[in-house]
Amino acid sequence: MNFSSKLLENAVAEFSKLPGVGQKTALRLVLHLLNQEKDEVERFGSAIVKLRNEILFCKVCNNISDQHTCEICTSHKRDRSTICIVEDTRDVMAIENTNQFNGVYHVLGGLISPMDGIGPADLEIDSLLTRIAPGEVKEVIFALSATMEGDTTIFYLNKRLKDFNINISTIARGIAFGGELEYVDEITLGRSIATRVPYENSLSR
Amino acid sequence: MNFSSKLLENAVAEFSKLPGVGQKTALRLVLHLLNQEKDEVERFGSAIVKLRNEILFCKVCNNISDQHTCEICTSHKRDRSTICIVEDTRDVMAIENTNQFNGVYHVLGGLISPMDGIGPADLEIDSLLTRIAPGEVKEVIFALSATMEGDTTIFYLNKRLKDFNINISTIARGIAFGGELEYVDEITLGRSIATRVPYENSLSR
Repeated sequence: MNFSSKLLENAVAEFSKLPGVGQKTALRLVLHLLNQEKDEVERFGSAIVKLRNEILFCKVCNNISDQHTCEICTSHKRDRSTICIVEDTRDVMAIENTNQFNGVYHVLGGLISPMDGIGPADLEIDSLLTRIAPGEVKEVIFALSATMEGDTTIFYLNKRLKDFNINISTIARGIAFGGELEYVDEITLGRSIATRVPYENSLSR
Repeated sequence: MNFSSKLLENAVAEFSKLPGVGQKTALRLVLHLLNQEKDEVERFGSAIVKLRNEILFCKVCNNISDQHTCEICTSHKRDRSTICIVEDTRDVMAIENTNQFNGVYHVLGGLISPMDGIGPADLEIDSLLTRIAPGEVKEVIFALSATMEGDTTIFYLNKRLKDFNINISTIARGIAFGGELEYVDEITLGRSIATRVPYENSLSR
């Protein structure tokens, strides 16, 4: 593109680095911000810089937090004997929105992915084992994506956890509620038949 | 959404204000930035703030520029007797990329749109008339979107320009190069028949 201004070109280049944002979209976003009031743009710029500089990660569960220990980990209403293992903070938010889980979380900060050069040492696995070691944890639930990376991570962690006396489970996989059978992929459908559950257990509470 | 951090919520709220960016996309972008180095994020934040604070608009054509007069308006190679009227800087960039235009531009900064409360007074129309008044301009080309707003703006400007002794034209409308007839909408196809051009004129140079 032929930019009439270096400042504009620079701002567009920065926006283009965001995932899923091409040069045309970046230009649209930048021109939108250019039309806003100066203090509005100042607020936008400082919000992200402030977040990056001041954000903390809960020293218990590694979730994004404003404090050294997050609200979930400090809450007296949560069941500390059940740990749900997730990839990142988005998964914590998604599960919290369901109101179906009253335990605590452990955020791995990624999944094992040899293709991307991410190994167990890059994830928050040691801190998980440290949490489990005292023996108060009774159950660990894997709530990871049903992908190659998710399965690899579960396989690895399952091996590391088998010496502890805890129940290990994964969230149920199968057809989605409201999903029409003819549109479900073969693997999901096949597995959902193989792992069928007694009717009484399938009723949502 | 249930944010675990006020800082995160704040940054996501700022990103959500961007056009076409919903809360989920905003969260994805913010988490991406959170994974970058601090100085990388600093550069992102300052690029947009610096742009907003330091950007200039060419005092001749109103295009975005780093100087008080833009490169096109100061260039001795450009034909100052032909002014191409466009909506915003993106259109200047698009036309410059074609290498088919050697005149100068005038950026209106928008289109007349009563629905959005944008009238002639909100656009750079007085500065256009001031440019044309001395009599050096021979032709004005309207390169505006073929929408209701574009047509309204052309209609209004045409009336304001008719007292000057200049040629007024609009960019050609019709089927796109490479476009298959069966997929062209009826209005475009109908108008392209009504405004057909002699075969020799249609050959691209």
